[in-house]
Amino acid sequence: MCPDAVRVMIERHSLGVRHLTEPAPDDAALALMAEAALHAPDHAELTPFRFSVVRGAARERLATLFGQIADAAGRDPESVAIERERALRAPVTVAVIARIDLGHPLVPQHEQWIAVGGAITNYLNAAHGLGYAGKMLSGRKVRHPAVVEAFCKPGETLVGWIVLGTPTRPTGSRSPKALVPDIATDW
Amino acid sequence: MCPDAVRVMIERHSLGVRHLTEPAPDDAALALMAEAALHAPDHAELTPFRFSVVRGAARERLATLFGQIADAAGRDPESVAIERERALRAPVTVAVIARIDLGHPLVPQHEQWIAVGGAITNYLNAAHGLGYAGKMLSGRKVRHPAVVEAFCKPGETLVGWIVLGTPTRPTGSRSPKALVPDIATDW
Repeated sequence: MCPDAVRVMIERHSLGVRHLTEPAPDDAALALMAEAALHAPDHAELTPFRFSVVRGAARERLATLFGQIADAAGRDPESVAIERERALRAPVTVAVIARIDLGHPLVPQHEQWIAVGGAITNYLNAAHGLGYAGKMLSGRKVRHPAVVEAFCKPGETLVGWIVLGTPTRPTGSRSPKALVPDIATDW
Repeated sequence: MCPDAVRVMIERHSLGVRHLTEPAPDDAALALMAEAALHAPDHAELTPFRFSVVRGAARERLATLFGQIADAAGRDPESVAIERERALRAPVTVAVIARIDLGHPLVPQHEQWIAVGGAITNYLNAAHGLGYAGKMLSGRKVRHPAVVEAFCKPGETLVGWIVLGTPTRPTGSRSPKALVPDIATDW
């Protein structure tokens, strides 16, 4: 029994790059987070996901990519700078890449996405449990050909990025989320 | 910081109805599990899921439904009995119902399934953290018209059922899962 584990899940919330600082999760923390992700429910254990970790000097490479895309889209210099900043400011950015088998004989596509969601959830839960914080980001950028080429092998889908670091303000301090009224009813 | 929360996620594993007994999670436990589910990452907070709890006398109704379907499919009496037993033996069975907005302007379908997966994962993590155990079940039965009609409103999808109870053998005692080699690499 570990009621504290329930508290960690309930208190975890998204924290954007403006509220993240060094240190980033180290090798040991990232390995534990990946292990937690691997233990989320996953029908037939297909592991339809992988993580690509952007840290250290690789952040400059990601900033260049984000900047070029914003620039090519005709965004103003300020927006381009914000895009670059997003990559540089996060102590670590982890790309979440799905590998969905569309023709799997046993596990329909939606169950594979469910497994991806479980992995992301446990990855973030574990980060929070280890004292870190972060947020999942997606948006149109994940479908940009240059971004897809930079992260995915053939057949893979870029889901988005998890930014991670040490929170600059206490987490778990938000007002509690109201329970959605019909979230659980008796059959 | 709560490293024990990470341990709960890593040690959690599926446990089928043969290894589950009374007591089932009570109202307070089910509410905490639903709350944990609501705090999983969910882009734009669409809450694209709900839970329908089958317990007490409702289990007999579910057993009848499962039995009828197996019977209509021409299954032998033993298989029909096993199907009935599945519904009766679990101290509580929770149907997971997805409500996916296929035309959402911001959140693509796969991100909504990811949110469903996060909810299922936190629901099961919380059950485990509270001393219970269980398993997610799906299969062809979830698409049977009589089953869908019994659980879903128009536009909803039955994902499957989570069986829950108190474990009859210690959980977290399985040999550790090998880390998938390419699960996390540097970009």
